[in-house]
Amino acid sequence: MNARFFAFVGGNSGIWKVVSNETLIGEPLGEVSRLDIVSGSKVHPDPHAGWVLRGITSNERYVVREEKSKLLAKQQGLGRPEATCAALIPIRKNSAWWALTQDERRHILEENSKHIKIGLRYLPAVARRLHHCRDLSEDEPFDFLTWFEFAPAHQADFNELVSELRATEEWNYVEREIDIRLVRE
Amino acid sequence: MNARFFAFVGGNSGIWKVVSNETLIGEPLGEVSRLDIVSGSKVHPDPHAGWVLRGITSNERYVVREEKSKLLAKQQGLGRPEATCAALIPIRKNSAWWALTQDERRHILEENSKHIKIGLRYLPAVARRLHHCRDLSEDEPFDFLTWFEFAPAHQADFNELVSELRATEEWNYVEREIDIRLVRE
Repeated sequence: MNARFFAFVGGNSGIWKVVSNETLIGEPLGEVSRLDIVSGSKVHPDPHAGWVLRGITSNERYVVREEKSKLLAKQQGLGRPEATCAALIPIRKNSAWWALTQDERRHILEENSKHIKIGLRYLPAVARRLHHCRDLSEDEPFDFLTWFEFAPAHQADFNELVSELRATEEWNYVEREIDIRLVRE
Repeated sequence: MNARFFAFVGGNSGIWKVVSNETLIGEPLGEVSRLDIVSGSKVHPDPHAGWVLRGITSNERYVVREEKSKLLAKQQGLGRPEATCAALIPIRKNSAWWALTQDERRHILEENSKHIKIGLRYLPAVARRLHHCRDLSEDEPFDFLTWFEFAPAHQADFNELVSELRATEEWNYVEREIDIRLVRE
């Protein structure tokens, strides 16, 4: 079985060196110098870590078969040797978002905001893994943690990707967003 | 904020007395005499309990606005004085289900199996709360825990509801199901 549960441990250790930590919306996340990514729900991260964000990969909530086929045909995995740049973007959506029904959320996310279509345009340059946190417990600080990896040559593309998404209707429902950039050392 | 996290503690205490514990598919769950329902993710249930099943309420995954409006108009809450009968039905679906895309799961669940439509016919007699478990950790024993409450006069209706659902295409994807019946004492 593939690992599904991941802890992102912000502190002084790990192969990922933090190069920036920008708060876009809501409460900031403390400054740390390095990030360690640990898998498995039985892990007990370093108690001296600055912070620990936990998330679990899961079934897709919005993607339809035609989109999934396109994604599978174009996407590449994490861990490519040339992909030495990364971003960790923790997000929380507001209660208005979570009160919407499935059809309403899908409509905003894709028909209006083109979230999946925009993401597809940046494949295979940007590799991505989405982790869900909202249903791990009642008081998680974020709903999602998205981890991205790309080569230094695609940094400008990645910046374009996130600014396209941040300009969509879907982002009106985001009430907390942090953008942490990292390099592998 | 409403409580979202619940632990169903099977043991020797709690206001719900177990009257039957039937394994429909897969591995059984141990026999216990009573059930206690505890809310909040910080709870530490009795270590002498026979078993503890944990789940969290969440946003709806399939319901569209029109269905939600009908559900809200007809449904009643848990804890009605006359609803002295209950059922706890833990379910796990197989990996084929979870590999389907959102449109495929919706199609099987509602267009083919009429899950929401069937449930609506038994409102307001049967009150229900759905708890998600699959994304609490990597190794939960079930994907969902559904808790139902109804008056003794509606026991036959409830039996009809569950047998209608068990005859649907959706149930081909169920790989573990337990049906525990209880009375409030």
